[in-house]
Amino acid sequence: MMVGCENSKKSDSGSNEDKSLSDDIINLDQGDPTAFQEYWMKKKDRCTVVIPAWDLMSYFSDTKNVCWFLEPELEKAIKALHGAIGNAATEERYIVVGTGSSQLCQAALFALSSLSEVKPVSIVAAVPYYSTYVEEASYLQSTLYKWEGDARTFDKKGPYIELVTSPNNPDGIMREPVVNRREGGKVIHDLAYYWPHYTPITRRQDHDLMLFTFSKITGHAGSRIGWALVKDIEVAKKMVHYLTINSIGVSKESQTRATTILNELTKTCRTQSESFFEYGYEKMKSRWERLREVVESGDAFTLPNYPQDFCNFFGKTLSTSPAFAWLGYKEERDLGSLLKEKKVLTRGGDRCGCNKRYVRVSMLSRDDDFDVSLQRLATIKDLKCVEP
Amino acid sequence: MMVGCENSKKSDSGSNEDKSLSDDIINLDQGDPTAFQEYWMKKKDRCTVVIPAWDLMSYFSDTKNVCWFLEPELEKAIKALHGAIGNAATEERYIVVGTGSSQLCQAALFALSSLSEVKPVSIVAAVPYYSTYVEEASYLQSTLYKWEGDARTFDKKGPYIELVTSPNNPDGIMREPVVNRREGGKVIHDLAYYWPHYTPITRRQDHDLMLFTFSKITGHAGSRIGWALVKDIEVAKKMVHYLTINSIGVSKESQTRATTILNELTKTCRTQSESFFEYGYEKMKSRWERLREVVESGDAFTLPNYPQDFCNFFGKTLSTSPAFAWLGYKEERDLGSLLKEKKVLTRGGDRCGCNKRYVRVSMLSRDDDFDVSLQRLATIKDLKCVEP
Repeated sequence: MMVGCENSKKSDSGSNEDKSLSDDIINLDQGDPTAFQEYWMKKKDRCTVVIPAWDLMSYFSDTKNVCWFLEPELEKAIKALHGAIGNAATEERYIVVGTGSSQLCQAALFALSSLSEVKPVSIVAAVPYYSTYVEEASYLQSTLYKWEGDARTFDKKGPYIELVTSPNNPDGIMREPVVNRREGGKVIHDLAYYWPHYTPITRRQDHDLMLFTFSKITGHAGSRIGWALVKDIEVAKKMVHYLTINSIGVSKESQTRATTILNELTKTCRTQSESFFEYGYEKMKSRWERLREVVESGDAFTLPNYPQDFCNFFGKTLSTSPAFAWLGYKEERDLGSLLKEKKVLTRGGDRCGCNKRYVRVSMLSRDDDFDVSLQRLATIKDLKCVEP
Repeated sequence: MMVGCENSKKSDSGSNEDKSLSDDIINLDQGDPTAFQEYWMKKKDRCTVVIPAWDLMSYFSDTKNVCWFLEPELEKAIKALHGAIGNAATEERYIVVGTGSSQLCQAALFALSSLSEVKPVSIVAAVPYYSTYVEEASYLQSTLYKWEGDARTFDKKGPYIELVTSPNNPDGIMREPVVNRREGGKVIHDLAYYWPHYTPITRRQDHDLMLFTFSKITGHAGSRIGWALVKDIEVAKKMVHYLTINSIGVSKESQTRATTILNELTKTCRTQSESFFEYGYEKMKSRWERLREVVESGDAFTLPNYPQDFCNFFGKTLSTSPAFAWLGYKEERDLGSLLKEKKVLTRGGDRCGCNKRYVRVSMLSRDDDFDVSLQRLATIKDLKCVEP
């Protein structure tokens, strides 16, 4: 995530003014998940956390746990939520908490490569991939691992780690590993978006190393809470070692708040009128319908199509409404620049190992930003007709 | 900081039972600053933070700030506190917030070495140094920088970064850089302990890159909040770049709580009965007097002596009471192992680039742990007389 000092709107300050004709820059580059704030506003005081000054002072949460800085109540809340949703197995796994799943992904790269006899370990992901992986694997120029790009064309010998994001960021497709060598391969499953408001829950994932993030479930990006479900204790220990050196653990205040909010999700997930997932599903579905309407009313853009699937959580066949739209332009043109002219910031497909004809557009902005961005998209669609 | 799964007491759970004869392990290896919890208990609801579910959801705090994830109120609170205490200049500086000062130290290593034309940049610190620096500079085997050990014997050509901790961790001595080459040198000033309850504030520090941490001021280690005061905008930007990739910013809940608590420090710092620094000074002074009493009643141990100095904050000449005791043994023996036999965990001097005759002992434990550790120290002192 790159953030400049452009005159973009501070995302956390609600605004009701009509922006359709304004010059405000709409930032849909980052996936700031402010769309869901309205749900939490309606909760009023229900999930408010109250922390007295004397509480949560120690570095330690539970010295007997491999992850000694993980608050025991958060561990319980994570297990309960996965149990209620049925999206991931937590049995016989170590839970490692992180300052968001970015830090955990780096902890996992450190752990898996430290445990490899041969170094550097190649890091790959199938195109289009989450652009931040490239930065995470490269910025420190570590000799433990090396970013090697597209998993589909990867042919280097030796140990490797494949990053599998499913549903995929940026394009929302459900994914499996693609390298699949008999030996020397490890997989990190980034399941940030494997929740029923985005995609049908078709199976209980039970991989060796799975990453989740609080941000993309409920919209609480500011809390910087993520967790890993890790089968191998040696990997879990090495991840904890990374987190110990990197930041001596994870904010207890954020862990406390995440506990309260995750418990609320679990408690209400079977009550249609209260369930966050019911709300989130309808919200995302409606946004995707509106986006598809704009795209289909012209002939300029493309969007992926997602198969319907039976969702074990909702108990019915449902559509997919990813957190990002992977928007393509039918002509060979830099779509990111085109949208930037319209003051809509998106992430260029080139940063995802792909073509500049594509951009990743956040579907999780506030309502007003989403509305205006659709209007601006519509003007490009029309532009194309006027100036072919 | 290494944490095992030993049967050590969970530091955050108060306990009133008499442990003098018990077998509990006392962990004085980490500097878990739980000593100060009693002060915050007395505040009752005064600095309680209340965070509703809809608040602090965005990644962003202020997109116009170089450090876009820094809450503006925390920035104000930091400036106000430094102004009130007079320990550091904040004018014409960028404030970068981090998940504790460990993360910031790594952000600074990244920033300064990225901006160096020649790499790897040598990282040095004068012995005895904070053992975690070695790990921070080494664990990722980065090609940007390389740990080169003791600054006093450093003679390698090329660019270097000297880590200057003042007062020093582990030995409490006020420090200056020791390499002082004309060119190619950068200094990171770690001023974690430059607060009036530990040491007289003799000057307003105004270095290029200064690190502070919430943990060691007030005891709120669990919040993982640190900040850097940075003169050069390019360095600040690179640090923010590191923090963006490493964890996409810093917990907003922790920032909010730190704001409340730092503001309370500033507000009460001139009211003797309420001031945290008055309380902290008396607390630390009394602990050091008791420790010196045990040490001086025998002939086994050594402790550094600190000159008295005029403290600009308190307006009088005062003694120094560091957060760690740098305890030496007069015979050539592994003092850490000796203390471990007595079930007191400390950090061995070898980890600080020094001799095993020395250990670093946290002076910030709870009262009961401190009391018992003194009793156990006394038995070693006596042992020496009985078995010379």
